[in-house]
Amino acid sequence: MNRVHNFSAGPAALPDAVLERARADLPDWQGLGMSVMEVSHRGPDFMALAERTEASLRELLDVPENYRILFLAGGATLQFASVPLNLAPPGSGADYVVTGNWGRKAVSEASRYLNVNVAADSESTGYTTIPDPATWSVRDDAAYLHYTPNETVYGVEFHAIPDVSDAPLVADMSSTVMSRPIDVSRYGVIYAGAQKNLGAAGITLLVVRDDLTGRARGDTPGVVDYRLMAESGSMWNTPPTFCWYIMALVLDWLRDEGGLAVMAERNERKAGKLYSAIDASEFYDNPVDAACRSWMNVPFRLADPELDDVFLAEAEAARLTNLKGHRLAGGMRASIYNAMPESGIDALIDFMADFEDRRA
Amino acid sequence: MNRVHNFSAGPAALPDAVLERARADLPDWQGLGMSVMEVSHRGPDFMALAERTEASLRELLDVPENYRILFLAGGATLQFASVPLNLAPPGSGADYVVTGNWGRKAVSEASRYLNVNVAADSESTGYTTIPDPATWSVRDDAAYLHYTPNETVYGVEFHAIPDVSDAPLVADMSSTVMSRPIDVSRYGVIYAGAQKNLGAAGITLLVVRDDLTGRARGDTPGVVDYRLMAESGSMWNTPPTFCWYIMALVLDWLRDEGGLAVMAERNERKAGKLYSAIDASEFYDNPVDAACRSWMNVPFRLADPELDDVFLAEAEAARLTNLKGHRLAGGMRASIYNAMPESGIDALIDFMADFEDRRA
Repeated sequence: MNRVHNFSAGPAALPDAVLERARADLPDWQGLGMSVMEVSHRGPDFMALAERTEASLRELLDVPENYRILFLAGGATLQFASVPLNLAPPGSGADYVVTGNWGRKAVSEASRYLNVNVAADSESTGYTTIPDPATWSVRDDAAYLHYTPNETVYGVEFHAIPDVSDAPLVADMSSTVMSRPIDVSRYGVIYAGAQKNLGAAGITLLVVRDDLTGRARGDTPGVVDYRLMAESGSMWNTPPTFCWYIMALVLDWLRDEGGLAVMAERNERKAGKLYSAIDASEFYDNPVDAACRSWMNVPFRLADPELDDVFLAEAEAARLTNLKGHRLAGGMRASIYNAMPESGIDALIDFMADFEDRRA
Repeated sequence: MNRVHNFSAGPAALPDAVLERARADLPDWQGLGMSVMEVSHRGPDFMALAERTEASLRELLDVPENYRILFLAGGATLQFASVPLNLAPPGSGADYVVTGNWGRKAVSEASRYLNVNVAADSESTGYTTIPDPATWSVRDDAAYLHYTPNETVYGVEFHAIPDVSDAPLVADMSSTVMSRPIDVSRYGVIYAGAQKNLGAAGITLLVVRDDLTGRARGDTPGVVDYRLMAESGSMWNTPPTFCWYIMALVLDWLRDEGGLAVMAERNERKAGKLYSAIDASEFYDNPVDAACRSWMNVPFRLADPELDDVFLAEAEAARLTNLKGHRLAGGMRASIYNAMPESGIDALIDFMADFEDRRA
């Protein structure tokens, strides 16, 4: 293994143990004489894997019994459309809180289907803050309230669940799911693309409270109808089986590591170290309000943007890769999901200090 | 390698060469120090893979310049909804020809969005025939004409492209794509889930004529809007990157094997051998009209259905797996896509003859 420290925002680094297992399982999975890609999703071996995945998620995320766990295709972006199709009858409206790029995209897609009320938007601060929930203009008759607990581009994260509306709370947790324990019972729907903390791009986890299924509009494609998918064990059509399998391996790894409480402790420490290093320097800067800095995505800027390209090239040479910031934010970004080991953070901090010494 | 002959209808067997390559590429793809699952879809390495995939498809399938090639998530079943959303304005209608289970599902899903006219349906023959296209009740004002060139459950395949309507021809080629050369210019839209002849479940190939993009209804989810996806190189959102990569490996293998003309010759020979063995026996039977027997899925029944379970158990012991027929059709089914080598057909025929000798 000649692996780099990969700070990609997503698709993102996977645990070494997951990749080793996937390699060992090719081309003969469980002694079947076939790879996991080649078996029927309705056969006993894949069905056992599907059940194990759901049981692991239910245990790790502490999902209450009155919630269904779905495995869907199409990414979180398809859920931007599927959430209104499933939860909001034609002519109704929903509240959206925008604290970054993904929330804005969710609004744009939802607007095809319903009357979107932007209850709060932090664009005026360059998405460096989270507006106080007490100031959100939520509506009593909203079909739901949608927000994005972590925004990858600007590195802004909610560290508490907002409690300002009686409408079901819907969260795009793509970039924060499994990074800490959460109280699932506070939510109506949680969804997350897999390619940050749950595996490979191509499968989406969705957790939905029972009573929010069975309401889909007639023009909802069957593959994203929550009731149809719940009743068919997410096999109304052929699911993305290999991505499902990788998710199972990631969940095995999470259990082996000690679960979400351990992840939370580790993630808080990893992020804390990196923010401390940035804050202690005049050479690096992170503009985000300290109260809502992300544990998962740490954007930072160099005092002299002329040095950006040199920084990236030297980091690459030091086997620290994918540190370029999103084009909307510029600068650098270190995405440090669960799979990023603390040694990767230490290596980055050392490199940053060394670069500063030489270039400041 | 201790591989079986896998006759699964899908997800189906992959070429050994593809799995060996995938194994070799874990966990370090192209010397990047990352697996292909961990790189950004917008980075230069994945972009090069995406371009190579499209170029391979364009060459192998001989796709004309005025057609776009898209890589979509959600499986062919999502296209059952996406085709009407993209091609048919609200209030319009389309013609559907039903020659099996998948065509029927396509009708059911399309009915959410438009007025479906079933132009022909072979249910009265137990889906063992294809109605003469001259008898189809097509409509002059149909937005398109949809059919399923190969039906997996009953093993019925069109061996010529129907030419009975001026409406754009739309084909669900999930179980026949890449099995032979086709004249793409005769079609408006071709789509195919990958898990039979193009790789792993989780990605869908779609080939669409330029003038049929840009017509999507306002309530079309962005991830299946053909124009949006064409303009973004199928990266309007994060695509299923690993499945895309597996497709690229399958296409490499197809080129190495000599392309679709070679596949067609091989597939016709493989299927011909198996049908001949069935027809020569009083013990096995295939009910499908000889003019439309599938090259890809060969269902057969034992004269004595009481022996079905013994047949399956003994086949399994002989490392011939997944031969059980679909529950709608009963009996046996051998799915023999491109990746099934001729030696697998020979092994099955030998086993069938031996079983007959012992049990007849």
